[in-house]
Amino acid sequence: MQIFYTPDLPEGASHYTLSEEESKHCIRVLRLEQDDSIQLVDGRGGFYTARIIDPHPKKTLLVITEAQQAFGKRNHYLHIAVAPTKNIERLEWFLEKATEIGIDEVSLILCQRSERKEAKVERLDKIITSAVKQSIKAYHPKLNPIQPLAKLLSIPFNGQKFMAHCLPGEDKVSLAAQLQLQGHCLILIGPEGDFTEKEIADALQSGFKPITLGESRLRTETAALEACFEVNFLNR
Amino acid sequence: MQIFYTPDLPEGASHYTLSEEESKHCIRVLRLEQDDSIQLVDGRGGFYTARIIDPHPKKTLLVITEAQQAFGKRNHYLHIAVAPTKNIERLEWFLEKATEIGIDEVSLILCQRSERKEAKVERLDKIITSAVKQSIKAYHPKLNPIQPLAKLLSIPFNGQKFMAHCLPGEDKVSLAAQLQLQGHCLILIGPEGDFTEKEIADALQSGFKPITLGESRLRTETAALEACFEVNFLNR
Repeated sequence: MQIFYTPDLPEGASHYTLSEEESKHCIRVLRLEQDDSIQLVDGRGGFYTARIIDPHPKKTLLVITEAQQAFGKRNHYLHIAVAPTKNIERLEWFLEKATEIGIDEVSLILCQRSERKEAKVERLDKIITSAVKQSIKAYHPKLNPIQPLAKLLSIPFNGQKFMAHCLPGEDKVSLAAQLQLQGHCLILIGPEGDFTEKEIADALQSGFKPITLGESRLRTETAALEACFEVNFLNR
Repeated sequence: MQIFYTPDLPEGASHYTLSEEESKHCIRVLRLEQDDSIQLVDGRGGFYTARIIDPHPKKTLLVITEAQQAFGKRNHYLHIAVAPTKNIERLEWFLEKATEIGIDEVSLILCQRSERKEAKVERLDKIITSAVKQSIKAYHPKLNPIQPLAKLLSIPFNGQKFMAHCLPGEDKVSLAAQLQLQGHCLILIGPEGDFTEKEIADALQSGFKPITLGESRLRTETAALEACFEVNFLNR
């Protein structure tokens, strides 16, 4: 069945009108008709089944026939902060894959060695939405605009804080050894040239623990996805 | 230091001439000079340091200054068989990421519901080689040309055999519960429309065990990477 993203659907609504874009997709592209059923996700855990009662190509009217809240609610909260890659497609891949596998929040960080200083959040958010629909997630991961690492370090975070960096360090531990299951965690992933020594020192000072993601030399987006895999796998 | 791929470098060689392509890359692109040092991987576990003694742009001559065998040898053997995706970039992405994370062999399979019936192995192999160099792997994963699933099922495989499919089945287990560590395993990943019931029955008949890769609905290439991640993580 077809999935539509309806972030403004109020809980408890009996009817809903698809946005102009989604109406067009529903009626002109998918050629759905009156009485056809579709599914809706509101990005906040709501998962709905609805029937088309007016197949208008700009304002398709639906009646909600079934509603579930907290659909597929995850047992933990994962926030990954990553420096956008020089080739933006690599970041886009990460966002798509992390959404499929399971993530709650992504922050984009600007580091000393970042090759990319800006990233268009709106476009990136569309990639997340597309993955939300494709993989039938009722929760839409939150994407925060790019901010300097120092700013992120200064924001209080109620949970475990980790930093994956590539410099040698005997104090590095694996997530498997450290992660408190079913908790909140924030993991920092550096840019292509890694974090600087000062950035690492600042993060440790702010309560981040250094972690290793295995023996392989991973690209930025692969490291971010590896962290996402590990946290989800350990919490399974 | 720069890494070059030298599959024809004989073990124990004292000198080596880079191929025309690699010579050009070394001298014209990277502008390396006489007495500069580079690193070589032979794809069979050999990892070398070499010094340029003749910076010829078509046949760069090197003297080997250091040689290590079985460099980064993995403690298990992972073979993933996957149906190529309709959008070939998705398969390419899997090959790059799997090479970074760790894989030994990839087979491309033709299934009943495959949307893509062919795949250019030479091009795909270049993507693997590029990831081998980027992530400093001395072992080059083997890529097998596309073959019908039935043919793959008929080949004897000395190790554990798993199939990840999306049909409901109470007999599905997780890799964590089943995988024998440090062993050989072969995992089948189906096409975008999943394996057919007959394909699943045939595989189980051939000794494959059905596995689940978690609760999320994953795309083909994400499922293949999830399997790769799980096997590596469990064997860490």
